[in-house]
Amino acid sequence: MAPPPPAPPSVTLRTVLLLLRVLTAAFLLITVVLISTNTVTLEISSTSIKLPFNDVYAYRYMLSAAVIGLVYAVVQLFLTISQFATGKTHPLTYQFDFYGDKVISYLLATGSAAGFGVSKDLKDTYIALIEFDSTDPVDKFFSKGYASASLLLFAFVSLAVLSVFSSLALSKRPVPVS
Amino acid sequence: MAPPPPAPPSVTLRTVLLLLRVLTAAFLLITVVLISTNTVTLEISSTSIKLPFNDVYAYRYMLSAAVIGLVYAVVQLFLTISQFATGKTHPLTYQFDFYGDKVISYLLATGSAAGFGVSKDLKDTYIALIEFDSTDPVDKFFSKGYASASLLLFAFVSLAVLSVFSSLALSKRPVPVS
Repeated sequence: MAPPPPAPPSVTLRTVLLLLRVLTAAFLLITVVLISTNTVTLEISSTSIKLPFNDVYAYRYMLSAAVIGLVYAVVQLFLTISQFATGKTHPLTYQFDFYGDKVISYLLATGSAAGFGVSKDLKDTYIALIEFDSTDPVDKFFSKGYASASLLLFAFVSLAVLSVFSSLALSKRPVPVS
Repeated sequence: MAPPPPAPPSVTLRTVLLLLRVLTAAFLLITVVLISTNTVTLEISSTSIKLPFNDVYAYRYMLSAAVIGLVYAVVQLFLTISQFATGKTHPLTYQFDFYGDKVISYLLATGSAAGFGVSKDLKDTYIALIEFDSTDPVDKFFSKGYASASLLLFAFVSLAVLSVFSSLALSKRPVPVS
Protein backbone atom coordinates (compact mmCIF):
# COMPACT_ATOMS: atom_id res chain seq x y z
CA MET A 1 0.00 0.00 0.00
CA ALA A 2 1.51 3.36 -1.05
CA PRO A 3 2.44 5.69 1.84
CA PRO A 4 -0.11 8.53 2.43
CA PRO A 5 0.83 11.66 0.34
CA PRO A 6 2.57 14.35 2.49
CA ALA A 7 0.18 16.99 3.92
CA PRO A 8 0.12 20.20 1.78
CA PRO A 9 1.78 23.24 3.44
CA SER A 10 -0.54 25.05 5.90
CA VAL A 11 -2.31 28.27 4.87
CA THR A 12 -0.19 30.19 7.38
CA LEU A 13 3.05 28.94 5.87
CA ARG A 14 1.83 29.69 2.36
CA THR A 15 0.85 33.21 3.46
CA VAL A 16 4.29 33.79 5.02
CA LEU A 17 5.95 32.58 1.81
CA LEU A 18 3.73 34.86 -0.27
CA LEU A 19 4.65 37.79 2.00
CA LEU A 20 8.34 37.01 1.57
CA ARG A 21 7.83 36.97 -2.23
CA VAL A 22 6.15 40.39 -2.02
CA LEU A 23 8.93 41.74 0.25
CA THR A 24 11.63 40.49 -2.11
CA ALA A 25 9.99 42.19 -5.11
CA ALA A 26 9.45 45.44 -3.16
CA PHE A 27 13.08 45.61 -1.95
CA LEU A 28 14.33 44.97 -5.48
CA LEU A 29 12.07 47.58 -7.05
CA ILE A 30 13.33 50.27 -4.66
CA THR A 31 16.93 49.12 -5.22
CA VAL A 32 16.57 49.50 -9.01
CA VAL A 33 15.11 53.01 -8.66
CA LEU A 34 17.73 54.06 -6.11
CA ILE A 35 20.75 52.88 -8.10
CA SER A 36 19.59 54.11 -11.49
CA THR A 37 18.89 57.62 -10.17
CA ASN A 38 22.26 57.91 -8.38
CA THR A 39 24.09 60.69 -10.22
CA VAL A 40 25.92 63.62 -8.60
CA THR A 41 27.90 66.62 -9.78
CA LEU A 42 31.30 67.01 -8.14
CA GLU A 43 32.94 70.42 -7.75
CA ILE A 44 36.73 70.27 -7.95
CA SER A 45 38.54 73.64 -8.06
CA SER A 46 35.28 75.16 -9.39
CA THR A 47 35.08 72.65 -12.20
CA SER A 48 31.91 70.59 -12.33
CA ILE A 49 32.26 66.91 -13.11
CA LYS A 50 29.26 64.59 -13.41
CA LEU A 51 29.53 61.24 -11.61
CA PRO A 52 26.80 58.84 -12.81
CA PHE A 53 26.31 55.47 -11.04
CA ASN A 54 27.51 53.53 -14.09
CA ASP A 55 30.99 55.01 -13.80
CA VAL A 56 31.34 52.48 -10.98
CA TYR A 57 31.38 48.94 -12.45
CA ALA A 58 30.28 47.35 -9.20
CA TYR A 59 27.16 49.56 -9.21
CA ARG A 60 26.43 48.39 -12.77
CA TYR A 61 26.66 44.78 -11.54
CA MET A 62 24.45 45.66 -8.57
CA LEU A 63 21.81 47.13 -10.93
CA SER A 64 21.85 44.09 -13.25
CA ALA A 65 21.53 41.73 -10.27
CA ALA A 66 18.57 43.78 -8.97
CA VAL A 67 16.83 43.90 -12.37
CA ILE A 68 17.23 40.14 -13.00
CA GLY A 69 16.11 39.47 -9.43
CA LEU A 70 13.08 41.74 -9.88
CA VAL A 71 11.97 39.92 -13.05
CA TYR A 72 12.28 36.57 -11.23
CA ALA A 73 10.46 37.92 -8.14
CA VAL A 74 7.54 39.20 -10.23
CA VAL A 75 7.23 35.90 -12.11
CA GLN A 76 7.29 34.02 -8.79
CA LEU A 77 4.64 36.37 -7.41
CA PHE A 78 2.28 35.59 -10.29
CA LEU A 79 2.88 31.84 -9.90
CA THR A 80 2.34 31.94 -6.14
CA ILE A 81 -0.86 34.01 -6.41
CA SER A 82 -2.22 31.70 -9.12
CA GLN A 83 -1.48 28.66 -6.92
CA PHE A 84 -3.38 30.38 -4.11
CA ALA A 85 -6.29 31.13 -6.41
CA THR A 86 -6.54 27.77 -8.19
CA GLY A 87 -5.23 25.55 -5.41
CA LYS A 88 -3.29 23.67 -8.11
CA THR A 89 0.52 23.23 -8.09
CA HIS A 90 2.26 22.32 -11.33
CA PRO A 91 4.62 19.33 -10.74
CA LEU A 92 7.61 21.35 -12.07
CA THR A 93 6.95 24.16 -9.58
CA TYR A 94 9.09 22.42 -6.93
CA GLN A 95 12.18 22.26 -9.19
CA PHE A 96 11.60 25.78 -10.54
CA ASP A 97 11.37 27.18 -7.00
CA PHE A 98 14.35 25.13 -5.79
CA TYR A 99 16.81 26.08 -8.55
CA GLY A 100 15.38 29.56 -9.14
CA ASP A 101 15.51 30.65 -5.50
CA LYS A 102 19.01 29.22 -5.12
CA VAL A 103 20.58 30.80 -8.23
CA ILE A 104 18.87 34.19 -7.86
CA SER A 105 19.70 34.40 -4.14
CA TYR A 106 23.38 33.90 -5.03
CA LEU A 107 23.04 36.69 -7.62
CA LEU A 108 21.51 39.11 -5.10
CA ALA A 109 24.12 38.22 -2.45
CA THR A 110 26.99 38.92 -4.84
CA GLY A 111 25.39 42.15 -6.06
CA SER A 112 25.05 43.41 -2.52
CA ALA A 113 28.62 42.39 -1.58
CA ALA A 114 30.09 44.13 -4.63
CA GLY A 115 28.09 47.25 -3.78
CA PHE A 116 29.19 47.32 -0.14
CA GLY A 117 32.82 46.53 -0.97
CA VAL A 118 33.25 49.26 -3.56
CA SER A 119 31.30 51.90 -1.62
CA LYS A 120 33.63 51.64 1.35
CA ASP A 121 36.97 51.51 -0.48
CA LEU A 122 36.18 53.90 -3.33
CA LYS A 123 34.77 56.59 -1.06
CA ASP A 124 37.87 56.46 1.19
CA THR A 125 40.07 56.75 -1.91
CA TYR A 126 38.12 59.66 -3.40
CA ILE A 127 38.19 61.58 -0.13
CA ALA A 128 41.92 60.87 0.34
CA LEU A 129 43.05 61.72 -3.19
CA ILE A 130 40.72 64.47 -4.47
CA GLU A 131 40.42 68.02 -3.17
CA PHE A 132 36.65 68.54 -3.38
CA ASP A 133 35.23 72.03 -2.90
CA SER A 134 32.62 70.20 -0.79
CA THR A 135 32.39 66.51 0.04
CA ASP A 136 28.59 66.63 0.22
CA PRO A 137 28.00 65.28 -3.28
CA VAL A 138 30.46 62.42 -2.66
CA ASP A 139 28.75 61.61 0.64
CA LYS A 140 25.38 61.63 -1.09
CA PHE A 141 26.61 59.41 -3.95
CA PHE A 142 28.07 56.72 -1.71
CA SER A 143 25.24 56.90 0.84
CA LYS A 144 22.88 56.01 -1.99
CA GLY A 145 25.32 53.24 -2.91
CA TYR A 146 25.20 51.89 0.63
CA ALA A 147 21.42 52.20 0.76
CA SER A 148 21.05 50.24 -2.48
CA ALA A 149 23.47 47.54 -1.25
CA SER A 150 21.49 47.30 2.01
CA LEU A 151 18.15 46.91 0.23
CA LEU A 152 19.70 44.28 -2.02
CA LEU A 153 20.92 42.53 1.14
CA PHE A 154 17.37 42.51 2.56
CA ALA A 155 16.05 41.14 -0.74
CA PHE A 156 18.77 38.45 -0.59
CA VAL A 157 17.86 37.48 2.99
CA SER A 158 14.17 37.09 2.07
CA LEU A 159 15.07 34.98 -0.96
CA ALA A 160 17.58 32.90 1.03
CA VAL A 161 14.82 32.08 3.54
CA LEU A 162 12.51 31.19 0.63
CA SER A 163 15.31 29.04 -0.78
CA VAL A 164 15.46 27.01 2.46
CA PHE A 165 11.69 26.42 2.25
CA SER A 166 11.84 25.51 -1.45
CA SER A 167 14.64 23.03 -0.67
CA LEU A 168 12.61 21.47 2.13
CA ALA A 169 9.49 21.48 -0.06
CA LEU A 170 11.40 19.44 -2.62
CA SER A 171 11.73 16.68 -0.07
CA LYS A 172 8.02 16.76 0.74
CA ARG A 173 6.66 17.05 -2.77
CA PRO A 174 4.08 14.39 -3.71
CA VAL A 175 5.94 11.91 -5.93
CA PRO A 176 3.75 11.10 -8.96
CA VAL A 177 2.75 7.41 -8.79
CA SER A 178 4.09 5.92 -12.06
CA MET B 1 3.95 -1.73 5.49
CA ALA B 2 6.58 1.01 5.69
CA PRO B 3 7.97 2.09 2.28
CA PRO B 4 11.47 0.60 1.50
CA PRO B 5 14.26 2.98 2.78
CA PRO B 6 15.74 5.09 -0.08
CA ALA B 7 18.88 3.51 -1.70
CA PRO B 8 22.13 5.00 -0.27
CA PRO B 9 24.07 7.24 -2.71
CA SER B 10 26.26 5.25 -5.15
CA VAL B 11 30.03 4.99 -4.56
CA THR B 12 30.61 7.08 -7.70
CA LEU B 13 28.44 9.91 -6.43
CA ARG B 14 30.09 9.77 -3.01
CA THR B 15 33.52 9.88 -4.67
CA VAL B 16 32.52 12.90 -6.78
CA LEU B 17 31.23 14.66 -3.66
CA LEU B 18 34.46 13.86 -1.81
CA LEU B 19 36.47 15.26 -4.73
CA LEU B 20 34.40 18.46 -4.67
CA ARG B 21 35.10 18.75 -0.92
CA VAL B 22 38.85 18.39 -1.60
CA LEU B 23 38.68 20.93 -4.46
CA THR B 24 36.85 23.45 -2.29
CA ALA B 25 39.44 23.17 0.48
CA ALA B 26 42.34 23.41 -2.00
CA PHE B 27 40.95 26.54 -3.72
CA LEU B 28 40.37 28.19 -0.33
CA LEU B 29 43.84 27.36 0.95
CA ILE B 30 45.48 28.97 -2.09
CA THR B 31 43.12 31.96 -1.80
CA VAL B 32 44.13 32.55 1.84
CA VAL B 33 47.85 32.39 0.97
CA LEU B 34 47.44 34.63 -2.09
CA ILE B 35 45.49 37.38 -0.33
CA SER B 36 47.52 37.45 2.86
CA THR B 37 50.81 37.76 0.95
CA ASN B 38 49.52 40.57 -1.29
CA THR B 39 51.61 43.62 -0.34
CA VAL B 40 53.37 45.99 -2.77
CA THR B 41 55.51 49.11 -2.52
CA LEU B 42 54.32 52.00 -4.66
CA GLU B 43 56.74 54.63 -5.95
CA ILE B 44 55.18 58.09 -6.25
CA SER B 45 57.56 60.93 -7.10
CA SER B 46 60.39 58.79 -5.66
CA THR B 47 58.57 58.28 -2.39
CA SER B 48 57.93 54.69 -1.41
CA ILE B 49 54.54 53.86 0.04
CA LYS B 50 53.64 50.37 1.21
CA LEU B 51 50.22 49.04 0.15
CA PRO B 52 49.25 45.95 2.17
CA PHE B 53 46.11 43.95 1.22
CA ASN B 54 44.31 45.00 4.40
CA ASP B 55 44.29 48.63 3.34
CA VAL B 56 41.44 47.49 1.09
CA TYR B 57 38.42 46.57 3.23
CA ALA B 58 36.92 44.36 0.56
CA TYR B 59 40.14 42.28 0.55
CA ARG B 60 39.87 41.93 4.34
CA TYR B 61 36.32 40.61 3.86
CA MET B 62 37.55 38.30 1.11
CA LEU B 63 40.22 36.89 3.46
CA SER B 64 37.77 36.33 6.33
CA ALA B 65 35.32 34.59 3.97
CA ALA B 66 38.14 32.35 2.70
CA VAL B 67 39.39 31.51 6.22
CA ILE B 68 35.91 30.68 7.55
CA GLY B 69 35.23 28.69 4.39
CA LEU B 70 38.52 26.81 4.76
CA VAL B 71 37.73 25.81 8.37
CA TYR B 72 34.31 24.54 7.25
CA ALA B 73 35.78 22.71 4.24
CA VAL B 74 38.38 20.94 6.40
CA VAL B 75 35.74 19.89 8.96
CA GLN B 76 33.54 18.57 6.13
CA LEU B 77 36.50 16.70 4.65
CA PHE B 78 37.09 14.86 7.93
CA LEU B 79 33.38 14.02 8.27
CA THR B 80 33.15 12.79 4.69
CA ILE B 81 36.28 10.65 4.96
CA SER B 82 35.10 9.15 8.26
CA GLN B 83 31.73 8.30 6.65
CA PHE B 84 33.62 6.58 3.84
CA ALA B 85 35.74 4.65 6.34
CA THR B 86 33.02 3.62 8.78
CA GLY B 87 30.09 3.47 6.35
CA LYS B 88 28.00 5.13 9.08
CA THR B 89 26.15 8.47 8.63
CA HIS B 90 25.10 10.42 11.72
CA PRO B 91 21.39 11.41 11.43
CA LEU B 92 22.27 15.11 11.89
CA THR B 93 24.73 14.98 8.98
CA TYR B 94 21.97 15.78 6.48
CA GLN B 95 20.96 19.01 8.26
CA PHE B 96 24.58 19.99 8.93
CA ASP B 97 25.46 19.56 5.24
CA PHE B 98 22.29 21.30 4.08
CA TYR B 99 22.60 24.45 6.21
CA GLY B 100 26.41 24.47 6.27
CA ASP B 101 26.84 24.23 2.49
CA LYS B 102 24.13 26.84 1.92
CA VAL B 103 25.42 29.46 4.39
CA ILE B 104 29.12 29.03 3.57
CA SER B 105 28.47 29.09 -0.19
CA TYR B 106 26.73 32.46 0.25
CA LEU B 107 29.77 33.65 2.23
CA LEU B 108 32.22 32.59 -0.48
CA ALA B 109 30.03 34.12 -3.24
CA THR B 110 29.89 37.48 -1.47
CA GLY B 111 33.64 37.40 -0.72
CA SER B 112 34.42 36.81 -4.38
CA ALA B 113 31.99 39.51 -5.57
CA ALA B 114 33.43 42.09 -3.18
CA GLY B 115 36.92 41.19 -4.37
CA PHE B 116 36.07 41.48 -8.07
CA GLY B 117 34.06 44.69 -7.60
CA VAL B 118 36.73 46.57 -5.71
CA SER B 119 39.64 45.33 -7.85
CA LYS B 120 38.08 46.75 -11.00
CA ASP B 121 36.93 50.14 -9.66
CA LEU B 122 39.81 50.83 -7.29
CA LYS B 123 42.50 50.04 -9.84
CA ASP B 124 40.86 52.37 -12.41
CA THR B 125 40.71 55.12 -9.77
CA TYR B 126 44.34 54.67 -8.66
CA ILE B 127 45.60 54.74 -12.24
CA ALA B 128 43.46 57.81 -13.06
CA LEU B 129 44.30 59.85 -9.97
CA ILE B 130 47.87 58.96 -8.98
CA GLU B 131 51.04 59.69 -10.93
CA PHE B 132 52.98 56.47 -10.33
CA ASP B 133 56.65 56.32 -11.29
CA SER B 134 55.70 52.85 -12.60
CA THR B 135 52.30 51.15 -12.61
CA ASP B 136 53.87 47.68 -12.31
CA PRO B 137 53.35 47.39 -8.55
CA VAL B 138 49.71 48.50 -8.90
CA ASP B 139 49.15 45.97 -11.69
CA LYS B 140 50.70 43.25 -9.55
CA PHE B 141 48.62 44.18 -6.50
CA PHE B 142 45.29 44.11 -8.30
CA SER B 143 46.19 41.06 -10.43
CA LYS B 144 46.67 39.16 -7.18
CA GLY B 145 43.34 40.61 -6.05
CA TYR B 146 41.65 39.30 -9.19
CA ALA B 147 43.37 35.93 -8.85
CA SER B 148 42.17 35.56 -5.27
CA ALA B 149 38.61 36.56 -6.23
CA SER B 150 38.70 34.01 -9.07
CA LEU B 151 39.87 31.19 -6.81
CA LEU B 152 37.19 32.14 -4.30
CA LEU B 153 34.69 31.96 -7.16
CA PHE B 154 35.84 28.42 -8.04
CA ALA B 155 35.54 27.42 -4.37
CA PHE B 156 32.03 28.93 -4.34
CA VAL B 157 30.99 27.01 -7.48
CA SER B 158 32.17 23.69 -5.99
CA LEU B 159 30.33 24.41 -2.75
CA ALA B 160 27.20 25.55 -4.58
CA VAL B 161 27.14 22.23 -6.46
CA LEU B 162 27.61 20.41 -3.14
CA SER B 163 24.78 22.51 -1.72
CA VAL B 164 22.42 21.25 -4.45
CA PHE B 165 23.34 17.65 -3.59
CA SER B 166 22.98 18.23 0.17
CA SER B 167 19.53 19.76 -0.47
CA LEU B 168 18.50 16.77 -2.57
CA ALA B 169 20.01 14.38 -0.02
CA LEU B 170 17.77 15.95 2.62
CA SER B 171 14.77 14.74 0.67
CA LYS B 172 16.14 11.22 0.38
CA ARG B 173 17.42 10.81 3.92
CA PRO B 174 16.11 7.71 5.73
CA VAL B 175 13.46 9.01 8.14
CA PRO B 176 13.99 7.35 11.56
CA VAL B 177 10.96 5.09 12.28
CA SER B 178 9.58 6.48 15.58
